[in-house]
Amino acid sequence: MTTPLPDFTARHIGPREADVEAMLRVVGQYSLEALVDAAIPSSIRAEAPLGIEPAASEAAVIAQLRGYAEQNQVLTSLIGQGYYGTITPGVIARNVLENPAWYTAYTPYQPEISQGRLEALVNFQTVVTDLTGLDIAGSSLLDEATAAAEAMTLMHRSTRAKDDSVLLIDERVFSQTLAVVATRAEAIGIPLVVADLSGVDSPAALRAAAGEREVFGVLVQYPDDRGAIRSYAALAAAAHEAKALVTAATDLLALTLLTPPGEWGADIAVGSAQRFGVPMMFGGPHAGFMSVRKGLERTMPGRLVGVSVDAVGYPAYRLALQTREQHIRREKATSNICTAQVLLAVMASMYAVYHGPQGLTGIARTVHERAQQLRGGLIAGGVEVLADAFFDTLTVRAPGGADAAVAAARQQGINLRRIDDDLVGISVDETTTPEVVNRLLVALGLPQQLTGAGDAAIPEDLRRTSDFLTHPVFSSHHSETAMLRYLRKLADKDFALDRGMIPLGSCTMKLNATTEMVAVTWPEFANLHPFAPDDQSAGYQDLIAELEGWLCEITGYDAVSLQPNAGSQGELAGLLAIRAYHRANGQGHRTVCLIPSSAHGTNAASAVMAGMKVVVVATAPGGDIDMGDLKDKVAQHGENLAAMMVTYPSTHGVYEDTITELCGLVHDAGGQVYVDGANLNALVGLARPGKFGSDVSHLNLHKTFCIPHGGGGPGVGPIGVREHLAPFLPASPQQGRTGAAVSAAPYGSAGILPISWAYIRLMGGVGLTRATQVAILNANYIAARLGEHYPVLYAGAGGLVAHECILDVRPLTKDSGVTVDDIAKRLIDYGFHAPTMSFPVAGTLMVEPTESEDLGEIDRFCDAMIAIRGEIQQVLDGEVSVADSVLRHAPHTAQSLVGEWEHPYDRATACFPAGLHAAKYWPPVARIDGAYGDRNLVCSCPPPEAFE
Amino acid sequence: MTTPLPDFTARHIGPREADVEAMLRVVGQYSLEALVDAAIPSSIRAEAPLGIEPAASEAAVIAQLRGYAEQNQVLTSLIGQGYYGTITPGVIARNVLENPAWYTAYTPYQPEISQGRLEALVNFQTVVTDLTGLDIAGSSLLDEATAAAEAMTLMHRSTRAKDDSVLLIDERVFSQTLAVVATRAEAIGIPLVVADLSGVDSPAALRAAAGEREVFGVLVQYPDDRGAIRSYAALAAAAHEAKALVTAATDLLALTLLTPPGEWGADIAVGSAQRFGVPMMFGGPHAGFMSVRKGLERTMPGRLVGVSVDAVGYPAYRLALQTREQHIRREKATSNICTAQVLLAVMASMYAVYHGPQGLTGIARTVHERAQQLRGGLIAGGVEVLADAFFDTLTVRAPGGADAAVAAARQQGINLRRIDDDLVGISVDETTTPEVVNRLLVALGLPQQLTGAGDAAIPEDLRRTSDFLTHPVFSSHHSETAMLRYLRKLADKDFALDRGMIPLGSCTMKLNATTEMVAVTWPEFANLHPFAPDDQSAGYQDLIAELEGWLCEITGYDAVSLQPNAGSQGELAGLLAIRAYHRANGQGHRTVCLIPSSAHGTNAASAVMAGMKVVVVATAPGGDIDMGDLKDKVAQHGENLAAMMVTYPSTHGVYEDTITELCGLVHDAGGQVYVDGANLNALVGLARPGKFGSDVSHLNLHKTFCIPHGGGGPGVGPIGVREHLAPFLPASPQQGRTGAAVSAAPYGSAGILPISWAYIRLMGGVGLTRATQVAILNANYIAARLGEHYPVLYAGAGGLVAHECILDVRPLTKDSGVTVDDIAKRLIDYGFHAPTMSFPVAGTLMVEPTESEDLGEIDRFCDAMIAIRGEIQQVLDGEVSVADSVLRHAPHTAQSLVGEWEHPYDRATACFPAGLHAAKYWPPVARIDGAYGDRNLVCSCPPPEAFE
Repeated sequence: MTTPLPDFTARHIGPREADVEAMLRVVGQYSLEALVDAAIPSSIRAEAPLGIEPAASEAAVIAQLRGYAEQNQVLTSLIGQGYYGTITPGVIARNVLENPAWYTAYTPYQPEISQGRLEALVNFQTVVTDLTGLDIAGSSLLDEATAAAEAMTLMHRSTRAKDDSVLLIDERVFSQTLAVVATRAEAIGIPLVVADLSGVDSPAALRAAAGEREVFGVLVQYPDDRGAIRSYAALAAAAHEAKALVTAATDLLALTLLTPPGEWGADIAVGSAQRFGVPMMFGGPHAGFMSVRKGLERTMPGRLVGVSVDAVGYPAYRLALQTREQHIRREKATSNICTAQVLLAVMASMYAVYHGPQGLTGIARTVHERAQQLRGGLIAGGVEVLADAFFDTLTVRAPGGADAAVAAARQQGINLRRIDDDLVGISVDETTTPEVVNRLLVALGLPQQLTGAGDAAIPEDLRRTSDFLTHPVFSSHHSETAMLRYLRKLADKDFALDRGMIPLGSCTMKLNATTEMVAVTWPEFANLHPFAPDDQSAGYQDLIAELEGWLCEITGYDAVSLQPNAGSQGELAGLLAIRAYHRANGQGHRTVCLIPSSAHGTNAASAVMAGMKVVVVATAPGGDIDMGDLKDKVAQHGENLAAMMVTYPSTHGVYEDTITELCGLVHDAGGQVYVDGANLNALVGLARPGKFGSDVSHLNLHKTFCIPHGGGGPGVGPIGVREHLAPFLPASPQQGRTGAAVSAAPYGSAGILPISWAYIRLMGGVGLTRATQVAILNANYIAARLGEHYPVLYAGAGGLVAHECILDVRPLTKDSGVTVDDIAKRLIDYGFHAPTMSFPVAGTLMVEPTESEDLGEIDRFCDAMIAIRGEIQQVLDGEVSVADSVLRHAPHTAQSLVGEWEHPYDRATACFPAGLHAAKYWPPVARIDGAYGDRNLVCSCPPPEAFE
Repeated sequence: MTTPLPDFTARHIGPREADVEAMLRVVGQYSLEALVDAAIPSSIRAEAPLGIEPAASEAAVIAQLRGYAEQNQVLTSLIGQGYYGTITPGVIARNVLENPAWYTAYTPYQPEISQGRLEALVNFQTVVTDLTGLDIAGSSLLDEATAAAEAMTLMHRSTRAKDDSVLLIDERVFSQTLAVVATRAEAIGIPLVVADLSGVDSPAALRAAAGEREVFGVLVQYPDDRGAIRSYAALAAAAHEAKALVTAATDLLALTLLTPPGEWGADIAVGSAQRFGVPMMFGGPHAGFMSVRKGLERTMPGRLVGVSVDAVGYPAYRLALQTREQHIRREKATSNICTAQVLLAVMASMYAVYHGPQGLTGIARTVHERAQQLRGGLIAGGVEVLADAFFDTLTVRAPGGADAAVAAARQQGINLRRIDDDLVGISVDETTTPEVVNRLLVALGLPQQLTGAGDAAIPEDLRRTSDFLTHPVFSSHHSETAMLRYLRKLADKDFALDRGMIPLGSCTMKLNATTEMVAVTWPEFANLHPFAPDDQSAGYQDLIAELEGWLCEITGYDAVSLQPNAGSQGELAGLLAIRAYHRANGQGHRTVCLIPSSAHGTNAASAVMAGMKVVVVATAPGGDIDMGDLKDKVAQHGENLAAMMVTYPSTHGVYEDTITELCGLVHDAGGQVYVDGANLNALVGLARPGKFGSDVSHLNLHKTFCIPHGGGGPGVGPIGVREHLAPFLPASPQQGRTGAAVSAAPYGSAGILPISWAYIRLMGGVGLTRATQVAILNANYIAARLGEHYPVLYAGAGGLVAHECILDVRPLTKDSGVTVDDIAKRLIDYGFHAPTMSFPVAGTLMVEPTESEDLGEIDRFCDAMIAIRGEIQQVLDGEVSVADSVLRHAPHTAQSLVGEWEHPYDRATACFPAGLHAAKYWPPVARIDGAYGDRNLVCSCPPPEAFE
């Protein structure tokens, strides 16, 4: 008689108790404990159960979260600096941010089942290109600061800059942007000069500003950090004359009224789309953006959605120019950006769809009017206000009185920005009512005054004259009914976890429980400015401290930083910590980073960005790291060895028993061990990287700890480190600590941390461990059921895999011509998302069911894979050619059923392979031709006629 | 240059400003004002604009609602009496209660597009039949008290009771149930006797308890109002011997542990499914239920979902036995129930699907254990607790100390029930933690004590031994992932407002804006007990008072009651007020109610229930009321005339200009005028029934005031009355006022009143008026576009309709055989819900677009109707027989595409009539054979094999 699982644990984990027994029998193990003992090397097993308090009920967790929420104080924020109050239209909040159809979707690598969010992302790209006046925009970056850092490296490589060529930064760029750019520049040795660029209007002046050095790029803020709108046209012309490129960090809302950067000469624009309907979230997540002029798109970082055609020539969206991306370029990558901010980009794009060009302009005018009213009141009260040309931000001179002014405002429930002893910054936004302006004036001891309108404070020559958002999508959905239906229509095109399993190796698509999600949209968590005074974020601080503690307990590390807002940023932060550690020890020459050939491509890209030199370690025939080669490489680079990055369990889904030896070898040579935490879902409660030899890991809270993938972001990539690396964890200028800044906000994507907090609290140590056990069981059950149909490529001790398994399709491909692509697309007809294709081994499929899939769904998947194997057999047997096969023509649309039927198989086989009455997902397009779209690059909304 | 509309008004109203101009041209009017002047008789026009404050922004409305929320104090409720704390599983809250796919659906009259919610309702029926141990359950009633009243009339007619035969009610039935039953009994002259029935075990004892009168029915509470579990087996046997029937008002959660009523002899069970995951909502809405033993199903009130088959023989759900319903039986109806509580029944059924039989039993055991722990603590502290056999409710004797005990508990944040000076009631529930029990003991000055477990306090002979919820649906979706997918799968089968227009005449399917909906699920509104002390519901009180004031202003009445929780209950309440008024004036003989032949069937049913005699007034050829016949009827019945019920604008969608004369005739004869407010959406801001001659109206907040239809409920049917009727408005025993009680809770479905409050606040007087104007414009635009294809049956002055129009299909049917049904089903292929069919005129379609549909959607609908007219022409022209036509075979499923194709039309015509790439809704089943299901009545979950 077993004790029943706590309620939530049984809700999170898919298989019922009886199913677990049945599955164990298939796997040939008599208990979960025996399975785990057989699979995981005893040398790395955790000695004690997780020291995390027992599971709390969902009601108790909600109550505790309410308690934290109440400890946060939400004042009216006029702090600005890239974070503004905004109104999320209710229809978008409820039907995107709170809708599993949007938030549980995966990255749109399978475009046929992702047309809804791809259309939303093309809308986003159109918003960014139209408003910035540039040609091509990506589908989002992590935040404004990292986007600026990416712009730096883009400019650096596009100009083929010499080593001593500098990036010239105007002194009025946001301080958090400066901090991140400085971190990234320092790591790769790009010199920066920060200066006042207002007078620069010639190549000579440019050179002078750079200390008489060559300049490869210029970065300005528009409007600037003090709120001033300045013309950069002469600066841009001078830069171009000097063969330098110009990046404008800018504000989408302001650009509805201002000459767009593309029109005054900027080559690149970056910024944050936060104020387009995404709450401040104590710093994130928000969609950063980048747009570039034509010619730069092929070196642009991050994901880009383009238009292509499907098998019948119908327009279809998919990710474009993927060969630019870090997972392809590996150590040649110039960016490690992987996860984007899809969910937030979708929200921002929908905000633009909802308001349209007139609506957005109207909002901007109201914001500007409010700033003018405030300025009028301040001036009438005898206060000195800097800058006559502004949009939404005023800088007030209060000699020696900044603190007093800030304190007085706070008494009235308003946060202002203290710039220094004498200056105060005030930024108004969409939520600033006249009442707030008056309240502020009263707080400052001034008479109320509400006059001022029009765009009087926008300089004549910098007023926007060009149209934007002229595509019909931005003027067709302005009633809430129309908007609701548009959101539903797009959501219905996509396949997400709310429809079925997404068995992606290495991406851990587990349940995103509602109880974990609800607090995200509570105003006390959503409406906090990241730079609000600490005493206003006590609830967040406590929650974060508790989460950090739990992550330390789970990983065995001594300290954790939650700042990195993606796994890639975590990698970078971890490697930067190693780098700083070596430097602090006088070992700055240690720059070699060993990376196995089977590693995630991002690993190598991150190493390069951390200023390291990548040396690849070979894979042995069995799939493990080639220990001989490793020894050779350690011997060869011992003196200069900085680190070795290794994924555990391996990217092959195996618990390698050499991990302890590996750590020893690296440590003995003076190097640090970095264990990539992508596969932590196979370790939680059973083994702790920080205890079995690793020095640092990043985790993916959006994999192991239930933050939903959002269709391709947000993510959170915290790092855990052992004590000796703790001094080198990321910091932020707002925290008054020195250290590398890897994200704009002190706690990165703080707004979604309640999700992971709730997951751990709901599961408790026992539940977390049980989840890991069942994740391993589910993977081994699939390996057992499918092994006779598709060889399982790698296995560890006892023939067991870890939490995922690789199905080898190569022999079948060789004999039949049926590819992993064909199988992936055919799975859509059966109602599944494809497994991971061709990673880490080309020509294979990697399957990770996670603990959340139940036996019914896993069997449905296995049945589909076995049926597909039968379809392949028909090709092997010569019954049908691969070109005519049901596999090659997959996925089949409903539309395909009504025309002439020219296939050797019938319609039912095509569309209802799992039975006529099985739940059916209909892909909106047939198989997409990716190459066509890359040859004919279109990255903004195609005209409606294209779809007729 | 027009002033732009306030933002929300422009979001709520579909057509853009420019569209309005274009549509006016089509209608032949030069402005909205001119349209309205031409359409509405000047004699009834409101003299002044609405005196309602200007529109507030969505942000301001949310802020104001938060203010009201904060004025409510949510204490731990141990009050019980049919309302209990419950935990709504997050996955159900988010994906049903907060999901437009569920809440914006209409009543499932079109079963092919309603299979999702019909399946959920069959699950509900199965929950009720299984737990009560009876054979057939309906798909929900309004609340427990009205369900008990319906049981009374069911027993009365089933036993063919004589006039002086009495209903015997045990004295321990909930007081609110007693009040509603008494109201209903009094109106139709059924004598009641309330007595202690504990000793009754023979026909003689039964008769004695009834004062030596014949008994037709018995009503008991199980467990009773004091919490005691008593055996009613002997009572039931005695009743049956005396030819009486027995109704048990009961509790679904308790029934997991108790012998179900059907097993000890009850013929009928009623109750509330509230504690199955539906918050208390300050009284409602919740799903009331009724189940009956076989033989009674054909006289059961309310809707019943049954299983039938579709055109290809596949199982399909639809409403069964509709000829029982009030809209068919009219003045022969024995119930006026129309709107049910579908959304809440869906939630309750999903709670059972989520927990399953073991889970529900576990919850019940925990609740029972908590009650035992509390009892143990009380007794250990020397307190006297009545009844040894109980489930969750204890009655404590505290001679003279009830008030002190209640006050002491309240000090600790706990509400108890004060029964009288000496008795206190305490009911624990799913949310009662041990900590609450201890807190209560401490509050009462007793030592903490937590012992007691098992079902010790359930009498041996009343313990449940029979299985329940053995159908696989109750054990297949216990992980949250599985539950989420089940909810998505069902939602995807249905067509709701989030997919397209639902152009239902008289049902006003307008936007249910998110901002209107959000407060409903805030804990401060959701978790209040309806009998909580007044000082804890100050926010609700203020909101309700404000809403009542606005409704008075809009309707021109002097007082409003929000108690009726459906339009039908509003009708009854209004007629009871008229009845009481006549009686108070010594005119009790006035019992004749005139009703036009075109009236909603519910009108006649309500009149019968109010003890009135229905006299039908004829319709003139033009569709208006036949004024000659009216004069004759008034003359004939003048002495006895109680009231005339009339819908305005008429059910024909016309502003009759005789309304003033009509009111005068009725008043002159001493009668009262009842204007049915179903069509109020054509009057708001333009005319006020209370000022143009009506004495009383009910409104449908779920039509005109944006409460979503929820797939067939909830509804709110408040009544407005002129001053002389105000003393006769509904009351409630909890309010300490005398008067008719028509719902269990003082404010009926209080929990959804914030929706209508928000709508009015967001629109302001000007916006509400504009909405009416555009609703009229939209209807007239459709009439203008479709008139040449389908004759518009009735029109008023200037050939204009009101807010809806009737398309006459009869000539086409006569000539082609194509029926309104064929057109309705064919519209599904085009992606529309059908208009209202055959009401008020058989063989016609009534279309009401509402103001929320935009020009694009209205044109899409008109285009579809015109295309269908072309399809009919093919039949008329003899190109195809009606039996072979695309119309008769509609709707076409995706499955139909894959078999042999035996139609004269092609597949694309069948399934993609609006184009291959138009957004497509796929009906999950083909046309349903309703008669088959009535002949082979199945009303609980069919076995899974049926679907193979």
